[in-house]
Amino acid sequence: MKQFRVGLLGFGTVGTGVVKCLFQNGSLIGSRVGIEPVLAKIADLDITTDRGIRVDPEILTTDVDEVLTDPDIDVIVELVGGTTIAKEFILRAFENGKGVVTANKALLAHHGDELFPAAERHGVDFYYDASVAGGIPIIKCLREGLAANHIESIYGIFNGTCNYILTRMENDGVAFNDVLREAQELGYAEAEPSLDIDGLDTAHKTSIMASLAYGQWYGMDPVHVEGIRNLELQEIRNAAELGYKIKLLGIIKMQNGLIQMRVHPTLIPTHSQLAQVSDVFNAVWVRGDIVGDTMYYGRGAGQDATASAVVADIIDVALNRQFESRQRVPGFRPHSRYADNTVAMDSISCRYYLRLQVDDRPNVLAEIAHILGAAGISIASLMQRESESDVVAIIVITHMAVESAVRRALDAVTRLPVVRGEPTMIRIEDL
Amino acid sequence: MKQFRVGLLGFGTVGTGVVKCLFQNGSLIGSRVGIEPVLAKIADLDITTDRGIRVDPEILTTDVDEVLTDPDIDVIVELVGGTTIAKEFILRAFENGKGVVTANKALLAHHGDELFPAAERHGVDFYYDASVAGGIPIIKCLREGLAANHIESIYGIFNGTCNYILTRMENDGVAFNDVLREAQELGYAEAEPSLDIDGLDTAHKTSIMASLAYGQWYGMDPVHVEGIRNLELQEIRNAAELGYKIKLLGIIKMQNGLIQMRVHPTLIPTHSQLAQVSDVFNAVWVRGDIVGDTMYYGRGAGQDATASAVVADIIDVALNRQFESRQRVPGFRPHSRYADNTVAMDSISCRYYLRLQVDDRPNVLAEIAHILGAAGISIASLMQRESESDVVAIIVITHMAVESAVRRALDAVTRLPVVRGEPTMIRIEDL
Repeated sequence: MKQFRVGLLGFGTVGTGVVKCLFQNGSLIGSRVGIEPVLAKIADLDITTDRGIRVDPEILTTDVDEVLTDPDIDVIVELVGGTTIAKEFILRAFENGKGVVTANKALLAHHGDELFPAAERHGVDFYYDASVAGGIPIIKCLREGLAANHIESIYGIFNGTCNYILTRMENDGVAFNDVLREAQELGYAEAEPSLDIDGLDTAHKTSIMASLAYGQWYGMDPVHVEGIRNLELQEIRNAAELGYKIKLLGIIKMQNGLIQMRVHPTLIPTHSQLAQVSDVFNAVWVRGDIVGDTMYYGRGAGQDATASAVVADIIDVALNRQFESRQRVPGFRPHSRYADNTVAMDSISCRYYLRLQVDDRPNVLAEIAHILGAAGISIASLMQRESESDVVAIIVITHMAVESAVRRALDAVTRLPVVRGEPTMIRIEDL
Repeated sequence: MKQFRVGLLGFGTVGTGVVKCLFQNGSLIGSRVGIEPVLAKIADLDITTDRGIRVDPEILTTDVDEVLTDPDIDVIVELVGGTTIAKEFILRAFENGKGVVTANKALLAHHGDELFPAAERHGVDFYYDASVAGGIPIIKCLREGLAANHIESIYGIFNGTCNYILTRMENDGVAFNDVLREAQELGYAEAEPSLDIDGLDTAHKTSIMASLAYGQWYGMDPVHVEGIRNLELQEIRNAAELGYKIKLLGIIKMQNGLIQMRVHPTLIPTHSQLAQVSDVFNAVWVRGDIVGDTMYYGRGAGQDATASAVVADIIDVALNRQFESRQRVPGFRPHSRYADNTVAMDSISCRYYLRLQVDDRPNVLAEIAHILGAAGISIASLMQRESESDVVAIIVITHMAVESAVRRALDAVTRLPVVRGEPTMIRIEDL
């Protein structure tokens, strides 16, 4: 059996998962694809901590160069993380003629425009299926399985931490801060949770998926990002009564020829497939002009699910090397079919959920309805909650409206003397 | 832009879809993958009927040889159907050095053992992602995206006609025969519906998926097949009360080192992802030892969804030709990792739903419970329906039990004088 030698940078959680996977299934993989991936070297600053797996001490090094320059190593797996030193390592791996596999979504979202041309220049492969939706082979599906389709829209539950928090809030009526603390204790959320809960991680993945769909490496600028930090329980309850669940979605959508990329809490119909995705699971809804609606579901993070995707990419690099077909399917191939046509958030249109706290006085509803109507915003349904205090909640669901008009109308509404505090606005997608 | 010339055999529903897809997105595909698939020739016995799409009459022929022997054609798309003449055409395409793409699951299930070695011998590609779950790229996912995994189980809703019928029975309480007639009127079911409703189509797909998962082309012999023709409404109602839905599943499962392949109506938990899959949609649940649970959802049939998968395969053949990497990922690569370890249906174990019609008399329950207990079958729950007649229904849900023991016990129960007619037995999968 031919072998394919793997050099690992970073022996943390995912790195350990990759080692376990290669040990456990390396030989099965060999039988399946005709070439067996073999662990050759691991570089990490810490090579003494017990990872719960026996590794030949000979292959451990603290010197990354020993891996990057080893002529016997065919592919480098970058699991260092971050956007600085990881980029350097990858570029040096390319220079040394090695294919690279990474799970580093932040690096890709921020520096893909530099990395992909470098890989092409050096004629090596650069794959990253683990960077979006963990174990779900969504990058391969989008790039190869759905290659015959113009992509109309993508809706992704890309962040397991947020989905876990939202599921707990919904099922058990626990407030955001309490669930967050609990998730941190369980290891589902980081001590510094901002990357997850403020939507940035979802935005990285949204940017990557949009780039693949439309052939231009977008980076982070065109992505509108809102997280779930300020989401209140009453929103989840109101949504449920109206037949919706709230999910943090990465949304990519072609509307009137323009491409939207946005991350925000979203009301989606309770009975939609995406709404059934709970706890730490991820799912990606992809609508193509030929295939129609498809969905991909699985674990979006964690040692093993991520390792499954990393090793699948290793196999692709291995086959390309064996068949001398590097860049056969490049990690990313730019084209200008959808050139420069992203749209600012102000100009999108969708339906909206609005909650206003107002004094319980006559004529309030009329005043609000008047402002919305004057802004061209048509009301689909309206619910006023009974209250024991003199402040009541008014919940409005709009028909399709333009974001800028909704924002202007909300500003005007907020200035009404009867309106208390800031109104809440959450977008709706009917999928 | 380099071009890749496609020859089509069969200008029916799917063939027309492939033509539409190439016309609509051929140039986009070229930008994406660097080579543009172009329709070169179509052979069909009928080249006069209007397919609602304008095709240059010059490329239409009734002579299949004009396509098979055209030196300018790179890939043959077989959409003739059936297991006789289609096989001949494919083998001749191989002999002429052409890659082949097909959606023909019956042909694959029955003759894959002959076709794949022939493709390998001639050094050409043979792909078939459209043959299972239509537009969902499930073959690519299983063969490439999940290649790092030992596959523990696969549960597939592979037949849209059956799923439509079951959804209607469940939602609207319409009996099987009435829904079937309606489905035939709507074009969701064939005039001769046996292939679908008796489970054979699902069995073809189950056999293909099992072969890919375990590296041996199994054919139809090891697949146990039951359809939905005899499924009564009361089973669906009882299942709902117990927290289950009934789906026709193709099940592939490694249990105690032995591989099961079976197709039958199955109770699955109402809140499971698979249970949410309704109408004509397909979905495939795949559990890998590394990745854990994943699911893939989309349209399993129809002109466009199938065309999406066919054209994705065309692209793979095109890239392999461009990069001289034919057989880089063969359509099927045999290995002996799981050699000859299929299991007979008698030896599987699972949980069971049993419905018995019995005389409404004292001690009946005790007699039945005694027979089940003596056969080593433990009862998880039991429900007796009130009735206006003197015959009542007893519904038993068992714990895990061996199939042969359940069958023997049911034989014994059926012989009890108090038991009327044949008992109903449906297997349960808790996913």
